[in-house]
Amino acid sequence: MRVLSRELSSHVGERVTLAGWLHSKRELGAVSFVLVRDRAGLAQVVVDGAIELQPETVVEVEGLAVSAAQAPGGSELQEASFRVLAEPVEPPPVELRRPVLKETLPTILDHAAVALRHPRERAKFQIAAASLAGFRKALDGLGFVEISTPKIVASATETGANLFKLDYFGRPAFLAQSPQLYKQTMVGVFERVYEVGPVFRAEPHETGRHLAEYTSLDAEVGFIRDHFDVMTYVREAVAGMAESVDERMGLAVPEVPAEIPWVHFEDTGVDDVDLAPADERRLCEEHGDWLFVTGFPSAKRPFYTHPEPGRPEYTNSFDLLFRGMEIVSGGQRLHRYEDYVAALGGDTESYEGYLQAFKYGMPPHGGFALGLERWTARLVGAKNIRETTLFPRDRSRLSP
Amino acid sequence: MRVLSRELSSHVGERVTLAGWLHSKRELGAVSFVLVRDRAGLAQVVVDGAIELQPETVVEVEGLAVSAAQAPGGSELQEASFRVLAEPVEPPPVELRRPVLKETLPTILDHAAVALRHPRERAKFQIAAASLAGFRKALDGLGFVEISTPKIVASATETGANLFKLDYFGRPAFLAQSPQLYKQTMVGVFERVYEVGPVFRAEPHETGRHLAEYTSLDAEVGFIRDHFDVMTYVREAVAGMAESVDERMGLAVPEVPAEIPWVHFEDTGVDDVDLAPADERRLCEEHGDWLFVTGFPSAKRPFYTHPEPGRPEYTNSFDLLFRGMEIVSGGQRLHRYEDYVAALGGDTESYEGYLQAFKYGMPPHGGFALGLERWTARLVGAKNIRETTLFPRDRSRLSP
Repeated sequence: MRVLSRELSSHVGERVTLAGWLHSKRELGAVSFVLVRDRAGLAQVVVDGAIELQPETVVEVEGLAVSAAQAPGGSELQEASFRVLAEPVEPPPVELRRPVLKETLPTILDHAAVALRHPRERAKFQIAAASLAGFRKALDGLGFVEISTPKIVASATETGANLFKLDYFGRPAFLAQSPQLYKQTMVGVFERVYEVGPVFRAEPHETGRHLAEYTSLDAEVGFIRDHFDVMTYVREAVAGMAESVDERMGLAVPEVPAEIPWVHFEDTGVDDVDLAPADERRLCEEHGDWLFVTGFPSAKRPFYTHPEPGRPEYTNSFDLLFRGMEIVSGGQRLHRYEDYVAALGGDTESYEGYLQAFKYGMPPHGGFALGLERWTARLVGAKNIRETTLFPRDRSRLSP
Repeated sequence: MRVLSRELSSHVGERVTLAGWLHSKRELGAVSFVLVRDRAGLAQVVVDGAIELQPETVVEVEGLAVSAAQAPGGSELQEASFRVLAEPVEPPPVELRRPVLKETLPTILDHAAVALRHPRERAKFQIAAASLAGFRKALDGLGFVEISTPKIVASATETGANLFKLDYFGRPAFLAQSPQLYKQTMVGVFERVYEVGPVFRAEPHETGRHLAEYTSLDAEVGFIRDHFDVMTYVREAVAGMAESVDERMGLAVPEVPAEIPWVHFEDTGVDDVDLAPADERRLCEEHGDWLFVTGFPSAKRPFYTHPEPGRPEYTNSFDLLFRGMEIVSGGQRLHRYEDYVAALGGDTESYEGYLQAFKYGMPPHGGFALGLERWTARLVGAKNIRETTLFPRDRSRLSP
């Protein structure tokens, strides 16, 4: 029966079978030390003489589990015999045996199928998976319902820019920039909803923080007073994600304060109508790992944003900064039909399906969106979100 | 403080506040009975005289919780005062007060934003959400890792047909028909992976079982013997989904047998190379709610399908039928690079990124995909999967 690498030490004295990839090999006098990589980690196998198999050969290895203080996990496989399941047709273009890949990012991305096999590379995506599980658990516990909404849409959700256009049975359609309009509609049905899924932005610039397609964690909630209520849900979601990463991966995440501090946009010392990346870094230096900036100027927030009562040049909106970068954007939305008609300046035709919800009674509500790749990048200290995206998409990259 | 409708009976004798939508009203002599709908259900409110508010008005209602055997949940709100949060601008186009909506399916779909508010309509999507949670829980427990792979791709994944074409920064790209190639690649990284996400098929036909966009529950697993190993994971996933629906919704799902029966395609009595809908119905009549059909003819399975050893006219593939309809398709895949080169007939250029994984060593593996909307339709007895899709997309329907 197959055992995993991390289970080897519970089978000392038994003959067992490992299965995985030949990660690396090293000859030392009359014996060879082979590391076999499986989904759980690495196991050391000791064989007499040289071993002809090449790195990334898929093998089953039968042998005797023996305590060995110097081996990963404190035990190794001896008296081993290899059975080859599949052989590589050429040597891998990245050197997986190194503790950290030394290839450049473009090389790593071009050869993602094999580069992702590196233990440190794949750990980033286990952190992402743990984060998703924590997000869902936190919101499920608060009575949210998971929804699946269409990605092929008839009109823009955010602005008319950055839209991917599509041939939909002979007529034009677009890829959804966000599930914004649908998640708001679903507040009318379930009050509290979330969706995890791809969103699409035809970003003309190549930066380390934007992609043409990314995974958005969206939530929306009804019967709120204002955006400060939404911020309490953001805090719960993020704390749930951090806890899940800690539990599953043992990665120490900066503790999420019970109340994340906040500062109004007008008190940030920013002269413009939005934060620049340098502002985000400075604010976190001043205030700590976690900071809400609230009350963004209406000039830079989408049409559905609720104005700040009495000061319509500001909005009931917020960003959450984490370690010097915006990872969440959200706020209170308009909820009255006539406010939408006014905000859209009469162009209600292309939003007819969306406006239905508001025609028939919607409570005060708000929500937020968190970019998974940015979150993971912040956690692992990656400078470029391409490092925390399995197969990134940008202006120049459409494959693999 | 707000209480939910289902919590009312725990507050008898107290003054509490409900919040929700005015679902229906009925005058009876000197009093009116109002049903208020919130995310948990319906609560009865009794007021003196007539009530002017229209259906779907969003309200907060303060009053005294009183036991009342004839009310939903065994209690009602008396001495009530209403506060209006938002008013509908016109009467809803569907009559939500009826036990079952009596409008036609096109009318319901055209007015989804409000039709989905009906308790029976929204219950279908709570069943879908519970199913997703059960799928993930079952596979997480088996060591699978959740992945997010791109939906904008450079080439077809299934066949060249049914592809949506996209303008990607001035060059052609396509919407992914499935995460097939990426989930196989990720077997090389994590051995066991799953993804829940949208898939896109430019289906030219309008049937009750096809959509242009649907939610696919995909899984892939390495180090298998053959497709029968994959079928054991399908069984675990489906049993987890059924259990979760039962737990969350109290809906009795037909018990999933510990071993789901199977029949080889050649023993189905089908003359063609694939099952027709009528065959699926007949086979379930003969064999029960759950049935695997294995060994489909290679003529109708995609290029990556592993042939049946010794009989290459058949494949190591399967469909799972549930209550007379295919809900899962899967099988063992090719895993050797040279087998892919042969299967693609030399057209390896457009699959270069995909073939990387196989160049550098892949174990025997297989996987499956389950369509969420079909699954839910089977559970609730819906004839058309548009009834179990929030905002369906087909040849003629692009909004809402």
